[in-house]
Amino acid sequence: MSKEISRRDLLIKGGALAATGALVTAGGLSLTGLAEAAKKEDGGYPYPYKKMNPQKSAEIAYNNWYKNFCAYGAASGIIIPQRNLVGGQWNSFPIMSVKFGEGGVQGWGTLCGTLLGASVAISLAAGHEGEPMINDLMDWYGSTMQPVFEPAKPRAQFKNKTMSNSPLCHISVGKWMQAENKGLKSPERKDRCARLAASVAYQSAVMLNAWADGKYKPAYSGKQSDCGITSQNNCTECHGDNIPNTI
Amino acid sequence: MSKEISRRDLLIKGGALAATGALVTAGGLSLTGLAEAAKKEDGGYPYPYKKMNPQKSAEIAYNNWYKNFCAYGAASGIIIPQRNLVGGQWNSFPIMSVKFGEGGVQGWGTLCGTLLGASVAISLAAGHEGEPMINDLMDWYGSTMQPVFEPAKPRAQFKNKTMSNSPLCHISVGKWMQAENKGLKSPERKDRCARLAASVAYQSAVMLNAWADGKYKPAYSGKQSDCGITSQNNCTECHGDNIPNTI
Repeated sequence: MSKEISRRDLLIKGGALAATGALVTAGGLSLTGLAEAAKKEDGGYPYPYKKMNPQKSAEIAYNNWYKNFCAYGAASGIIIPQRNLVGGQWNSFPIMSVKFGEGGVQGWGTLCGTLLGASVAISLAAGHEGEPMINDLMDWYGSTMQPVFEPAKPRAQFKNKTMSNSPLCHISVGKWMQAENKGLKSPERKDRCARLAASVAYQSAVMLNAWADGKYKPAYSGKQSDCGITSQNNCTECHGDNIPNTI
Repeated sequence: MSKEISRRDLLIKGGALAATGALVTAGGLSLTGLAEAAKKEDGGYPYPYKKMNPQKSAEIAYNNWYKNFCAYGAASGIIIPQRNLVGGQWNSFPIMSVKFGEGGVQGWGTLCGTLLGASVAISLAAGHEGEPMINDLMDWYGSTMQPVFEPAKPRAQFKNKTMSNSPLCHISVGKWMQAENKGLKSPERKDRCARLAASVAYQSAVMLNAWADGKYKPAYSGKQSDCGITSQNNCTECHGDNIPNTI
């Protein structure tokens, strides 16, 4: 992309010109032709993106957690506004295809479902330019007191926000449950996860909007392979004396 | 679904009748009508599925690992055959939307990308009936000496298969690297992961084919919430004295 016209530039120029109804070309192909060519290749990936209201994304994610849990909630907070603003391919992408991410994949406690759902949606919008955003989202998730989002009408009340230092569901929800002294099946834990889906959708929308404006700068400078293995790069949290023996 | 006609039954009956060219109805709606209604709701999720050759799925996954890594490889091993056999909605689903899963999400070592990619594809094919298959896949992945798949023309040779006892990339690749004494950037490690993508695609195809025949029986009986937290249920592997302090 660096050698050619960037997708972001194309998006901005394409959007501006499409608004005037002008017929435009890029590299000898009309934009319509480009879209058709891409569609033949891989379902038109990535999809056109329009800036959206992060607060609205968060509210959709929060409410949709109560329909189909974390991965669906976070993904829907991005995909549903894009269906309304852009339509087209966004309507053809099944949000339910990420529902399995709930509880770190059907309760297995691996990748937090909110990150799985949001990452798919970021990929749909930004293609390979979304990769640094996903890195930033993974880092922000674990290095921020979560959940950030406060719903206007919370379905349950709780006191604690916690920092997971990990994108893993088991670690993230475990630290919060320990701080709040509430169980997995409590209304408070459920609302904590619904607010987390909202927080992740909000943050994703903020990054995507900055990217659409040409103002997104990657924040996370870590490189996973620095440790010689795929990892979070905070090795001693597990390979040290810190793991609680609370079972 | 249990109260109504199951999706699997509809698929089998629909497929058999479609082959005869007959116009069929189910609950007063034509199958075409059902498909259109579903499409309006969430991109026509889940998609029609036709049985495929697991060996072919594995070969596609193996070769596509070398294009876009593990999540893309495993997903493509299911989605590309379905594009060829069924077409339609399968063509509109962008396989690249799961590429971010590589290395447990862009190298973070969380959920193995092969499981992420395959789970999305299983969801697309089977909807909520795919959930026990994803559970089985997660369990089989960690309780089997991996990689199972042996390519006809391997791009690298290695000796060891390992059992991860975890769906996490970091644990899975870490145990193999320790056994084989090869680094993350070695051709052997790359081929191990390509074969793992193939193994996961193969296993997914076997389960989906059994399901399409009405013969799929869930094998994994674990329930994650039994431990009071989202988890793998092998608690002492981390909350014990077993974690290597090799950093």
